[in-house]
Amino acid sequence: MKKIILFLFILNCSINVIGQNELMKQYDLMPWPKEITENSAKFIINSDVTISINANDEKHRVRNAAISFLRRISNRTGVFLEQGFPLEKSKANVTIVFDEVAELNIHTDEAYTLVINDSSISINSRTDVGAIRGLATLLQLTQNDITQYYFPGITIKDEPRFVWRGLMIDVARHFQPINVLKRNLEAMASVKMNVFHWHLTDDQGFRIESKIYPRLQEFASDGQYYTHEQIKDIVTYADNLGIRVIPEIDVPGHASALLAAYPEIGSKDGFEYAVERNSGIFDPTLDPTNEKTYQFLENLFSEITPLFPDDYFHIGGDENEGKHWNENQRIQSFKKEYDLKTNHDLQTYFNIRLEKILNKLDKKLMGWDEIMTPNMPTTAVIHSWRGENEGLQNGGSLIEAAKHGYQTVLSNGYYIDRMLSVKHHYSVDPIGNIKLSDTERANILGGETTMWSELVTPLTIDSRIWPRTAAIAERFWSPQAINNINAMKKRLKKISFNLEELGITHIKNRDVILRNITDNQDIASLEILSKICEPLKIYQRNEDGVEYKTFSPFSLFADACVVDAEDAEGYSDLVSKFINQPDYSFALQEQLIRWARNHDAFSKLKMNPKLAHLESLSQSLSSSSQILLSSIDSKSLTMDELRDLNNHLKVLEKPHADVEVVIINSLRLLSEFCKTNYLED
Amino acid sequence: MKKIILFLFILNCSINVIGQNELMKQYDLMPWPKEITENSAKFIINSDVTISINANDEKHRVRNAAISFLRRISNRTGVFLEQGFPLEKSKANVTIVFDEVAELNIHTDEAYTLVINDSSISINSRTDVGAIRGLATLLQLTQNDITQYYFPGITIKDEPRFVWRGLMIDVARHFQPINVLKRNLEAMASVKMNVFHWHLTDDQGFRIESKIYPRLQEFASDGQYYTHEQIKDIVTYADNLGIRVIPEIDVPGHASALLAAYPEIGSKDGFEYAVERNSGIFDPTLDPTNEKTYQFLENLFSEITPLFPDDYFHIGGDENEGKHWNENQRIQSFKKEYDLKTNHDLQTYFNIRLEKILNKLDKKLMGWDEIMTPNMPTTAVIHSWRGENEGLQNGGSLIEAAKHGYQTVLSNGYYIDRMLSVKHHYSVDPIGNIKLSDTERANILGGETTMWSELVTPLTIDSRIWPRTAAIAERFWSPQAINNINAMKKRLKKISFNLEELGITHIKNRDVILRNITDNQDIASLEILSKICEPLKIYQRNEDGVEYKTFSPFSLFADACVVDAEDAEGYSDLVSKFINQPDYSFALQEQLIRWARNHDAFSKLKMNPKLAHLESLSQSLSSSSQILLSSIDSKSLTMDELRDLNNHLKVLEKPHADVEVVIINSLRLLSEFCKTNYLED
Repeated sequence: MKKIILFLFILNCSINVIGQNELMKQYDLMPWPKEITENSAKFIINSDVTISINANDEKHRVRNAAISFLRRISNRTGVFLEQGFPLEKSKANVTIVFDEVAELNIHTDEAYTLVINDSSISINSRTDVGAIRGLATLLQLTQNDITQYYFPGITIKDEPRFVWRGLMIDVARHFQPINVLKRNLEAMASVKMNVFHWHLTDDQGFRIESKIYPRLQEFASDGQYYTHEQIKDIVTYADNLGIRVIPEIDVPGHASALLAAYPEIGSKDGFEYAVERNSGIFDPTLDPTNEKTYQFLENLFSEITPLFPDDYFHIGGDENEGKHWNENQRIQSFKKEYDLKTNHDLQTYFNIRLEKILNKLDKKLMGWDEIMTPNMPTTAVIHSWRGENEGLQNGGSLIEAAKHGYQTVLSNGYYIDRMLSVKHHYSVDPIGNIKLSDTERANILGGETTMWSELVTPLTIDSRIWPRTAAIAERFWSPQAINNINAMKKRLKKISFNLEELGITHIKNRDVILRNITDNQDIASLEILSKICEPLKIYQRNEDGVEYKTFSPFSLFADACVVDAEDAEGYSDLVSKFINQPDYSFALQEQLIRWARNHDAFSKLKMNPKLAHLESLSQSLSSSSQILLSSIDSKSLTMDELRDLNNHLKVLEKPHADVEVVIINSLRLLSEFCKTNYLED
Repeated sequence: MKKIILFLFILNCSINVIGQNELMKQYDLMPWPKEITENSAKFIINSDVTISINANDEKHRVRNAAISFLRRISNRTGVFLEQGFPLEKSKANVTIVFDEVAELNIHTDEAYTLVINDSSISINSRTDVGAIRGLATLLQLTQNDITQYYFPGITIKDEPRFVWRGLMIDVARHFQPINVLKRNLEAMASVKMNVFHWHLTDDQGFRIESKIYPRLQEFASDGQYYTHEQIKDIVTYADNLGIRVIPEIDVPGHASALLAAYPEIGSKDGFEYAVERNSGIFDPTLDPTNEKTYQFLENLFSEITPLFPDDYFHIGGDENEGKHWNENQRIQSFKKEYDLKTNHDLQTYFNIRLEKILNKLDKKLMGWDEIMTPNMPTTAVIHSWRGENEGLQNGGSLIEAAKHGYQTVLSNGYYIDRMLSVKHHYSVDPIGNIKLSDTERANILGGETTMWSELVTPLTIDSRIWPRTAAIAERFWSPQAINNINAMKKRLKKISFNLEELGITHIKNRDVILRNITDNQDIASLEILSKICEPLKIYQRNEDGVEYKTFSPFSLFADACVVDAEDAEGYSDLVSKFINQPDYSFALQEQLIRWARNHDAFSKLKMNPKLAHLESLSQSLSSSSQILLSSIDSKSLTMDELRDLNNHLKVLEKPHADVEVVIINSLRLLSEFCKTNYLED
C-alpha cells in the first residue's frame, strides 16, 4: 500500500512538473509560482486600466507598488493611462484585497492569489506584502501581439518555500551609494526576495555614521559612509517593498578600519592600524579580553540598533585567525585564567558576551558559521558559508546547524562574486534529499546570495548581482521540483531584460566600459569579444589580493564581461550538432565568419594601451576561426594550418586582461573534428 | 589715432582667435581657457602619479577633487596608481597651491594657472575653488599614443567672463531624485558651471519638506520631495564642487500644488485646488491681499532659508495672469483701496512685501523678469527669460534691467527644453555688441540654462541637458571672441563622451529606450532611425499641454532621440559636396545604402504597438533612399520613380511618433538634383 501511494505521488509530481515545463515556455515568470492554471481570457492593457485597493493600506506598501505598477505598464506598453494613481472609492478593473498590514519578520505571510479574466484582474492575500508579491507576478505577465499588450487569462496561487530569501551587499570593500542600493532593492522585490543583508563594515571601511564614536566615519570610511538619515531612508524604502534589512557589523576580525579609528580596543599594542587597501584576511582584531571592547560595542550597538527595526543583527565573526591574540601575552593569560583552550573558545566567549548585549537590545545574534562552536547557545543564528573550498563538506554547515537546533541561513553555493555560472548556483538546493524533522526543517530559514565587493564598483555591481540572483531567488521561493535548467535560462533572459526597467545597469554599462576602453571609438569589435569572454573565476582575478587595490581601475575589459557569456553556450550547442551532423553547419559557419572578420575591425581602431592588452586575443580568435572556417568549407586541413591553429588555440587558452575565452572548448572540439576528418597527409 | 588703436586691437584679437582655433584642433577643452600656450613637454601618466595639496584645504574641496581626479585618471587610462589619495607632507609630481578657502558668492575668485612640464604639473590659484577649476581643465587634457597616456606640455591662465554660470533644474513637473542631481552637479563642475538653480515648486508638485506646514509634502508632492537632510546633502555636495545653490519657491502663480495643501491662502474661495497633471499656465494663485499669505510665506521662508546658505533666493513670480484675482471681489476692492491700478501693480505690492521678509532673513530677492515693474526696487535681481516668443525683444530684458540698475541673469536663449540646436544656444551672447558702462556691465551677472521638466524623467533628463549645456557653459566662461561653431562642435564630441565618466546617462539610455520599444529585440534598425530624428521642437510635442500628463509614458521613440541628431549634419555636408561635385558620391551612397536596407531589418522585428508607430517612417526612409541611390547610380530617374520619391518624402516631412526627420532637407536637395539632372522624359 505504501508503495502504491508513493508511486501515485511520484506520478502526480511528474505530471505536474511536465505541465509546468509547458507553461514555462509561455510565461516568463520568475520565481515560478506554486500553482498556475490557464484560461482563455485576455485582459487588454489600454488607457482604461485602473487599480483600486480595497483594504486599509496604512503603510502605503500597496499604493506605492500600484503607482509603480502603473508607471511601468505605461512605459513598457506606450499606453497613455487616463488614471495615473489608484482610484479611491470607485470601481477599478484591477482590484486588490488583503486582510491586514504585515510587520516584517520571519513569520510574514507572503501568499497571494492572482486571477486574470477578460475584464478584471484580482489579487487577494492575507497581508499587504502578499499583495505586492502578486503585483510583481502580474508585471511579469505582460504579453503582446501586433496591435496590443495584454495580460493572459491565468489563475495563480502562490507562496514561498523559504521565509528568508536574501541578498547580501558588501559596501565596505567598495562603497555603494544609496541609489545603487535602492535600485537593487527594487530588483530584489521584483523577484520576491525579502532580506537585504547589509555588510556595513570590514577591513577596508566602516560605513555607518556614529555620533558617539565619530572617529569611525572620520578615520575609517574615506568619507564614504551612510548617515543615520540615509539608513532610515533605506530601511523605509526596503520595508515598503516588503524587504527586511539585516545590518552586519563584522567583529572581532575584519576590523582594520574600526581599529584605525579606535586602536585602543585592538589586540596588538602599538600596531599601526590603517584602513586596508588590499583584499584578503588581515590580522587586526578586537581584544576580547578588554572590557573597553564590550563597552564600545554596547554603546555602538545601542546607538545603531534603533535604526534597524528587524529582530536579527549580524555580528560577522568570520575568518578570525587570532594571530594578534597569539602575539599578545595579556590575551594568552586571560585564556588560561578563563580556561579557554583555543582561540575558538575565546571567540565563543566574545560571542556570548555580544549575545547578551544584543539580547538587552531585543536583537537575535546572527553570525557566519565560525560562531557555531560547542558552547555557543542555540539562540544564535548560523549563517552557513563555508564548504568544500574551506575544507568543510559541500553544502556547508546548514544541515548540521539545523539538527543542532540553530536557526540557519545558507550562503554556501550562492557566492556570486566567485563568478560561476547561473546553472551552478541554481542547482544548489539548501536541503536536497536530506530528511529532516519538522523542527529541523523549520530551523532552515532560507538562503542569501553574497555580493562581496573587492572587485566591484557602482559601475559594475549590477552586472555581478544580476541576472544570476534572479535564478537563485527562484531556488528560495519556488517548489524544490522546479529545477529545469533550460526552462530557467529561457525565462531568465526576459527577466534580465525587465530588470533594466528598474534602473539595473547590468546591460547598459557594458557599452559604457567598452567606450571607455576604445576612447569613444566604434565598440562593435569589442562587443563581439565580450560575448565570448568571462571574468576569471574563483578569485583568480586578484589571486594574492594585492594586484587590485580598492582604488584600482575597475573599468577594464574584464569589468565589461559577465558570467554566462552571451554567445558561448549557443556556440557550444552548434558545435555539438555539427559534430553529429556535419551537413548542418550554416549557423556555425556564420559565427566563425563573424569572429574571423573581427580582428580586421579591431585593427582599424586607433590603438591605446587598454586596447593593446586585447590584441593577441583578438588576433588569435580571428586567425583560428579563419582556419576552422576554411577547413570546414573545403573539407581539408594542411599540417601547416593545423600547427597555426594549435598555436592560436594555445593563445586563447591563456587568460587575457583578466578574462578567459569560454568558447575555447568549442574551438578545440572543432579543431579535433577537422584534424580527424580533414587532415591531409 | 583712435582708428589706429582700434585697428591694432582688432588685428590683435584676430591673430589670437586664429591661434586659438589651431589649438582647438589639438585640445578638447571646454570651456576654452582665457590664455593657453604650448610647450614641447609631455607628462606621462603612469603608476607614479601623485598629488599634493600645499595649502590649508579646510573645506576639503581640493582633496575631494584630487581623489576624484585620481579615480578618473586611473579608470580612463587603465593605469594602476600606487597612491590612491593625495600625499600628506611629501613631494608629489602634481602640486596644488592656493592662498585661501573661498566662501561661495558672486565675488568668489575662480582664476587659476596650470603649468604642465615633463616631470611636474602645478596648479596655482588664489582660492580652493580656482584650484578645482584647474583640476577640471587638467582632466580634459589627457591624450594618448599607442603605448601611453600623457598630459601635453601647456601653460594656461584662466578666469571666467561671467560670475554666474548656472543650470536650472525643474524638479516639480517631474521629480528628480538626489542621484540625478548629484551626477548633474558633477557634470556642471566638469565644465566650470557654478550655480545650481533648484526650481522646487510648481503647479505639479511642491518638492520640499516643511515641518511647519507638513501638508505640503503630504498633499502636494505625491510622496516625491526632498527632506531637509537631503537638501543639506545636496547643498554640501554642490559647495564641495564650488557650486552655489539657489532655491526657487515659485509664487504667487504656479501654485496649484501649494494650494492643494493650503487652500486657505488661495485667491478663489471654494476652488477645488489639486495637484496639476497637465502642462501649461494655470489659474491657482496666492491671495496677495490676505495677511495669512504673508504669515505663511514668512514662516515657510524662515524654515527653509537656513538650509540654503546662498545670498540669493528666487521667488519665481512668472506667468501670473491674475484670472482668479479678477474674479475675487475682495481682491478688487483691495486694489482700489491701495491705488493698485493693474494686476502687475498688485503683484509688485506682493513682491515688495516678500522682499522685506527675505531681507529680514538676509536674502536677496530674485525673480523672473515679470517682477521688473516701475515700482520694484533695484535691490531685486531680474532673471531675464522672456523674448521674441513672449512678445518682447530678442535677448530679453537683460540689458534693460542692467541699465535700470538691477543685477540680472540671462536665460532667454538658453531654454534647452525647446529642443533647439547647440549652434542656436551657443550663438546667443548675453551682451553682444551693446555698449555698457562699467556699472551696467557689473550688473550682468551671467546666465542660466533652464531644464523645464514637463517632458523629461530621470531616464531622459541627462540627454536633454547634455551635451548642449557644456557649450552654453563655454559661452558663460570663455572670452566673447571664442565663438567658432565648428571648433566648438569638434570639442563638444569629446566632452560629451567624457560626461559618461561622471555617470551622465545621455548616451547609454538611448539604447535602454530602444530595447524597451523593441521588447528586447535587436535595436540596430532603430538606432539608425534615431540618428536622423529629433524630438519635436518648441513645445510642439505637447502643444496643448494635455496629451502628456505627468504620469504619461516617457520611454517612447522621441525620448530616445536627441537634438543635433548624430547623422544629420554630416549628411547635409555630404549632400552639399555632392551637388557641387557629383563625382564624389561614395560616402553619400554608403549612407543611402544603409538607410535603403534599414527597413528590411526593421521588418524582421516581431511587431508591437510601439514599433507600429515607426513603420511608415522606416518604410519611407528606405524607399526614398533606394530611389535616390539607384538614380544617382544609374544617372536616371523615371517619372514613376519621381512620383514615388515625392510621396515618400511627403511622409518623411510629417511628424512621426513625436519626432521630425531632420535629414528631410538633404533628401529634398538630392531629389531636386536628380530631377534636374537625371529625369527621363
